[in-house]
Amino acid sequence: MADDLASAALTAQLAVASISSPSPSDLEPPTTRTSIRTILDAGDSLAGQRVVVGGWVKTGRQQGKGDFAFLEVNDGSCQGNLQLKVEKNVHPLARLKNTGTSVLVEGVLQKPPVEAKQRIELEVKLVIEVGEVDAAAYPLPKTKLNLETLRDFVHLRARTNTIGAVARIRHQLAYATHSFFNENDFLYIHTPIITTSDCEGAGEMFQVTALFSQAEKVEKELKENPAPSEADVEAAKLVVKGKGDAVAQLKAAKANKQEITAAVSELTKAKDNVLRLEERSKLKSGIPHKDDGTIAFDDDFFKRQAFLTVSGQLQAETYACALGKVYTFGPTFRAENSHTSRHLAEFWMVEPEIAFANLHDDMNCAERYVQYLCKWLLKHCSEDMEFMVKHVDKTAIERLELVSTTPFERISYTKAVEILKGTDKKFENKVEWGIDLASEHERYLTEIIFKKPVIVYNYPKGIKAFYMRLNDDQKTVAAMDVLVPKVGELIGGSQREERFGVLKQRILDAGLSLEPYEWYLDLRRFGSVKHSGFGLGFERMILFATGLENIRDVIPFPRYPGRADL
Amino acid sequence: MADDLASAALTAQLAVASISSPSPSDLEPPTTRTSIRTILDAGDSLAGQRVVVGGWVKTGRQQGKGDFAFLEVNDGSCQGNLQLKVEKNVHPLARLKNTGTSVLVEGVLQKPPVEAKQRIELEVKLVIEVGEVDAAAYPLPKTKLNLETLRDFVHLRARTNTIGAVARIRHQLAYATHSFFNENDFLYIHTPIITTSDCEGAGEMFQVTALFSQAEKVEKELKENPAPSEADVEAAKLVVKGKGDAVAQLKAAKANKQEITAAVSELTKAKDNVLRLEERSKLKSGIPHKDDGTIAFDDDFFKRQAFLTVSGQLQAETYACALGKVYTFGPTFRAENSHTSRHLAEFWMVEPEIAFANLHDDMNCAERYVQYLCKWLLKHCSEDMEFMVKHVDKTAIERLELVSTTPFERISYTKAVEILKGTDKKFENKVEWGIDLASEHERYLTEIIFKKPVIVYNYPKGIKAFYMRLNDDQKTVAAMDVLVPKVGELIGGSQREERFGVLKQRILDAGLSLEPYEWYLDLRRFGSVKHSGFGLGFERMILFATGLENIRDVIPFPRYPGRADL
Repeated sequence: MADDLASAALTAQLAVASISSPSPSDLEPPTTRTSIRTILDAGDSLAGQRVVVGGWVKTGRQQGKGDFAFLEVNDGSCQGNLQLKVEKNVHPLARLKNTGTSVLVEGVLQKPPVEAKQRIELEVKLVIEVGEVDAAAYPLPKTKLNLETLRDFVHLRARTNTIGAVARIRHQLAYATHSFFNENDFLYIHTPIITTSDCEGAGEMFQVTALFSQAEKVEKELKENPAPSEADVEAAKLVVKGKGDAVAQLKAAKANKQEITAAVSELTKAKDNVLRLEERSKLKSGIPHKDDGTIAFDDDFFKRQAFLTVSGQLQAETYACALGKVYTFGPTFRAENSHTSRHLAEFWMVEPEIAFANLHDDMNCAERYVQYLCKWLLKHCSEDMEFMVKHVDKTAIERLELVSTTPFERISYTKAVEILKGTDKKFENKVEWGIDLASEHERYLTEIIFKKPVIVYNYPKGIKAFYMRLNDDQKTVAAMDVLVPKVGELIGGSQREERFGVLKQRILDAGLSLEPYEWYLDLRRFGSVKHSGFGLGFERMILFATGLENIRDVIPFPRYPGRADL
Repeated sequence: MADDLASAALTAQLAVASISSPSPSDLEPPTTRTSIRTILDAGDSLAGQRVVVGGWVKTGRQQGKGDFAFLEVNDGSCQGNLQLKVEKNVHPLARLKNTGTSVLVEGVLQKPPVEAKQRIELEVKLVIEVGEVDAAAYPLPKTKLNLETLRDFVHLRARTNTIGAVARIRHQLAYATHSFFNENDFLYIHTPIITTSDCEGAGEMFQVTALFSQAEKVEKELKENPAPSEADVEAAKLVVKGKGDAVAQLKAAKANKQEITAAVSELTKAKDNVLRLEERSKLKSGIPHKDDGTIAFDDDFFKRQAFLTVSGQLQAETYACALGKVYTFGPTFRAENSHTSRHLAEFWMVEPEIAFANLHDDMNCAERYVQYLCKWLLKHCSEDMEFMVKHVDKTAIERLELVSTTPFERISYTKAVEILKGTDKKFENKVEWGIDLASEHERYLTEIIFKKPVIVYNYPKGIKAFYMRLNDDQKTVAAMDVLVPKVGELIGGSQREERFGVLKQRILDAGLSLEPYEWYLDLRRFGSVKHSGFGLGFERMILFATGLENIRDVIPFPRYPGRADL
């Protein structure tokens, strides 16, 4: 298997160079580089092969009284490094050995002479390119930095073992997500990022605006060319009066047509000038306001207030109610002033939406999806998962194995509350029917009581969103949360209210006005279907998989109050 | 092949129901639905099978003097409809036949009695659910609406044949994109949507802010609880003075400790009250301003101005310069007041970035990627592509075949200008060395001169971005555009400037300040590598594939000046 993979990858790599297109002579020839994963996967079967390798030096040490150096080089294709052996007559060794140095080299693969831990190393014959590093200035020395410090270097931290592993795991989880939904006939839908709808009817939303830059432009324009004063406008109006009088006089004097035409033309010009001045006299610096003192959002780009989406669900429903099975996978936003290790202002969500599906179907889909992700990681990320076990969380692989093979427990919210009340455990938040379960309750259920993933369903309607389907008991809605060890809630979903009258009433009961939801009601007016869906917080899934503690370390460029680096 | 696919899909569909999890008795049983694609692909081999089908009625007609009805039903899984035959004793036919009605039915598949165009139809035995439609109110009647009108119904238009086909083609192009890059060992990186960097150093960017909602909150708070006046603050200060005097008197009178402690406590409370009042007296409604009259963006969520990204390239470079080969696929934004059929305020871009790669490698990657997409569509979207040929652009399939099999022509910008100048064609925009090629020039090159895709490379530095690598001639940069028939520029890319000194000078020459680009310069300070990348406008690719004219029809929820529906 590993060898198949390696040889396929090698073929693919070589294909880059051998493409049949014409290559004009003024173009530098293409680079053929073999990935370190390909080499390490193939091991000593590649001994004797001449290859080009590029990457960054993790550690370098001179040996043999400075006659040669060993460089541990990583190219991001895998966690493992390739050992390079460079003789001093090939390249000045001091320029190669600093951590962070980039090298593109050609050499011959060989079995290390002594039985070292490496199965294969590269004897370098030619150093093609080097990107040097001043060790004193480089922010990422060989010694291990903690993850918090690394957050100040988001542009470099992908060069570290941990963040590199996270990037590969994140990639595999994203790819597995697309594979799962494609295999199951879902269509990937790009729901809008800029939206004029508020899915939760409550969320703290970022506003998207061009008003500031428009104001800046006006200000600049006024500085170069100040707005006319009232006196300027009055003066221009006097000119119009004068030109008008002139026309009248010419007409009264029965002047020739040419003269009158010329005078009328001047009058028209003078009138245009007044219009222009009046228009410019209204230019004001600053944000435009309406007469009642409120901000004139109808002057903004979209002629109304527009926001960053908090969820693609409502829009995804329009496609599910036309094409059956769809999913979104995109960024979502919350302008919450939250400084916890579990919240980001910008994060990614996966949101499937399924027509002709009830809550039971929804749970089945969620369970299959999560299990698919776990199995995928075990299969495609074993090296990086082992790294996590060794350096971050020793139960990380066990957890994936448990979740991928164990059917999820399914209990109603009412039952969950009974269970929690029946334990001796003292919770910080008191448990009683009607509360929103806190993280401590969720983790207790999945980690202590059931020791496996738990799906809690049929929540009190008072704590859930208006669009969730009202159950016959009139007290609960067809909602479900998937709880998993380590992170608690991983997925939240529901059957959507498909009955026009009930939905309308739920919107009103939530204190919302109907107008912004008319399009959403249309889905229930015209060919309504039962449908269900859920949302998985993608970064939560990565926390679950890796065992890392802080969500800021599992997204490449974390955004939170006060920070939006790069 | 088609049968394999069908049986695999059928198995997958059935698996949804047979999952081994416990099913609590208070849950409605799951729905087992067979997709219409599965049925149509399998054709009459499924005759006699009992299945559940759900979808929306495209057309319905009563026949046999009203004894039965034929419903053409579509469920979005494919372009084709399944014909349902319903007897009037199964369900009132008038409630089923209107266009847009949703039905979930159970029935038996059978070969149509007469040899009709259908190979298979469903004899309905049970109507499980119906979502009715009032034909008079339904905005999408059976008659064909033009695409422009449909844009006023973005929440319903996915139910039309054209927009449904676009959704499936878009899905396949997205899935093919992930497949291509995954097969070639690229990591999918989520570059930030909210950014404090400006990739192009010029673009019109949307600003992301919480200042308006913060101001609204303050305003509401002040309405409920007005800010204290100066007099209120003075009065509170007097109280402090009184309490202070009292403490002093008690101390002077050597009162007991308890009395003094009580008095000090009252003094502290009074002081806290003054602080609170002073703080609140500063509350002002409206957007916060600094003393110099400019807006106080350091009071905003990220403590500085933040924008929506125009490209993930610069951030993707940080990952490429650590992990080798990466790509982004995400939304990008332009606040341009552009009303053309080729521009959107929100659109999706695919941006690979490759370390140890020069412009030649970049072209090879772009050519292979575009050809992969074309081949993928021919293989996976033949039915929808045939629909496009029939209804939108009769050359759509030919174009995909041409591009997927023909090596792309590669010519330098200088050569392209020579060719254009040498033709008899009168262009609206005059051609001379140094101009940015206009769409008319690009399309002339690819459609008339070469009749195949063309890669133009080595553009004048004056018309390209600062980050593109300066060629040895000092006049051109290592940029390349891929031009294709129908849309002109599909891809723009370049080798990035990897030399620290040259890049620094280019930033300064572009009139930008260095400070915001220090992190970008760091990539050249520490272990710099040659690297290249490009961007493909995803909606442009869909226009190219489908032959549709307006970009607003190939994204589910188009955003442009004045419009951000839903």
